[in-house]
Amino acid sequence: MTSDLRGRELTEQVVRSFAETPDPRLRQVLESLARHLHAFVNEVSPTIEEWEAGIDFLTRTGQTCTDVRQEFILFSDVLGVSMLVETINDAETPDATDSTVLGPFHMVESPARALGDDVSPQSRGETTVVRGRVVDTTGRPVPGAVIDVWQANAEGFYDVQQSGVQEVGNGRGLFRADEEGRFWFRTIIPAHYPIPTDGPVGELLVATRRHPYRPAHIHFIVDAPGYRELTTHIFVAGSEYIDSDAVFAVKDSLVKSFEPVDSAELAADFGVTAPFRLAGFDIVLHTESED
Amino acid sequence: MTSDLRGRELTEQVVRSFAETPDPRLRQVLESLARHLHAFVNEVSPTIEEWEAGIDFLTRTGQTCTDVRQEFILFSDVLGVSMLVETINDAETPDATDSTVLGPFHMVESPARALGDDVSPQSRGETTVVRGRVVDTTGRPVPGAVIDVWQANAEGFYDVQQSGVQEVGNGRGLFRADEEGRFWFRTIIPAHYPIPTDGPVGELLVATRRHPYRPAHIHFIVDAPGYRELTTHIFVAGSEYIDSDAVFAVKDSLVKSFEPVDSAELAADFGVTAPFRLAGFDIVLHTESED
Ligand SMILES: [Fe+2]
Ligand SMILES: [Fe+2]
Repeated sequence: MTSDLRGRELTEQVVRSFAETPDPRLRQVLESLARHLHAFVNEVSPTIEEWEAGIDFLTRTGQTCTDVRQEFILFSDVLGVSMLVETINDAETPDATDSTVLGPFHMVESPARALGDDVSPQSRGETTVVRGRVVDTTGRPVPGAVIDVWQANAEGFYDVQQSGVQEVGNGRGLFRADEEGRFWFRTIIPAHYPIPTDGPVGELLVATRRHPYRPAHIHFIVDAPGYRELTTHIFVAGSEYIDSDAVFAVKDSLVKSFEPVDSAELAADFGVTAPFRLAGFDIVLHTESED
Repeated sequence: MTSDLRGRELTEQVVRSFAETPDPRLRQVLESLARHLHAFVNEVSPTIEEWEAGIDFLTRTGQTCTDVRQEFILFSDVLGVSMLVETINDAETPDATDSTVLGPFHMVESPARALGDDVSPQSRGETTVVRGRVVDTTGRPVPGAVIDVWQANAEGFYDVQQSGVQEVGNGRGLFRADEEGRFWFRTIIPAHYPIPTDGPVGELLVATRRHPYRPAHIHFIVDAPGYRELTTHIFVAGSEYIDSDAVFAVKDSLVKSFEPVDSAELAADFGVTAPFRLAGFDIVLHTESED
């Protein structure tokens, strides 16, 4: 038997080994995984040492994960897999707001805050107001929609990366839209930042001469009863790295202008002082049942 | 842009991100990985929850690894990936002895033993002698070849799985072939055994109704200066699960008869008492430089 034939035989043997899987979806996923993984191995013909290096990389990636660090999500992110999963799921709701990756920093619960509150009380930077409206696909407001936001500070760090400097919850807020679906909050303009580079994923970026930076952004998860949960970001227009996000998460529709505002009157409306930055983000949710 | 087109764009964007990788082999492997991984994701269209379940599985697989446990090798094993890598590498040396998977239990060094020694002094079971000769592809002996063997006991456990019951080194031995390339050692006949099932890989086997058993076998790594290292097993002919090894590692050429021997004379030659079992394993090494 040639090695090629042996290899193909082996792939079929592995696929058959899943034949008794009671859950048809699990069976489908594992059969597909076996075929694609074997096709990858056949294509690159790894030496034993290369296979060992791969095992070691995956092992260390798992072991780098803690309560506040998710290195496997980061690995999925830098391979564009997270974004591909988002893109596929997005396709089911083309008239809703575009989604993007969750990212590895949604690890703690955001503190409940009132509309207009400052999500970044411990951060110094350019005062910013973000406001918008949550509506359904027919344009009707979604009152009481829950809006979870989290962001880095002006140095590019999340709370969970800077214990002792930021308390957990700084840069985060959980809001409830008003009767007209409106929301608004204060914050500072976040900085672009490098994804964590002190783990295996960082080694990969160095070895491939890829930079680790993400353009400045604010994360959102928006949900309401009867609607499909939306995970997305807004990106700060003009931010460095907007065209080369390390995790491939930028979509044009999510790039928002953070406009400089000089009006003292408008500033007073939001309880800030001029000058400040104002960004608008209207969010369209898709109902759970529509297809 | 359709989601399909967006997905394909994204895959190409990820592939391009590796364009500056200085090591051409690393670049090739990562480009292939990106394409095959994206093809898998496109084929199964995972929901966000399924993607999260995958991330969780991989994370826990890494975190299950310790100094004496390698759950990622086990995962590679049950997906047939380890065996596929062996098969591909084997193809380069068709006239050498077939290789098979390393397995997850080569985690401690085998104690040096003299030819004829017992590798399983703390194990009870059927007395067995394994003997053979290490030769090159022209049939000439390889004197002084180093032969590393390790095996489970008659209950199916390796030393590292039974601290307090077996000392580390029981079931293991490092031998040096004599002037004529010959080697022989005493042991007991190993049992078939389940791969560890108390981790994520065990969950996978349960969920897919796959049994965790490997047919009885003895591991070998054989090497000599100027030769290509050979990693293989011999399998006990007639062992349960010989046709359904959980890690797909059985090759017909590696299944050996462990013959019952009644001769007191032959027993005396090996320093054992009749009856005992005798298995022969002649090993052909390929030189390092031949192609
Ligand atoms: Fe982020
Ligand atoms: Fe084994």
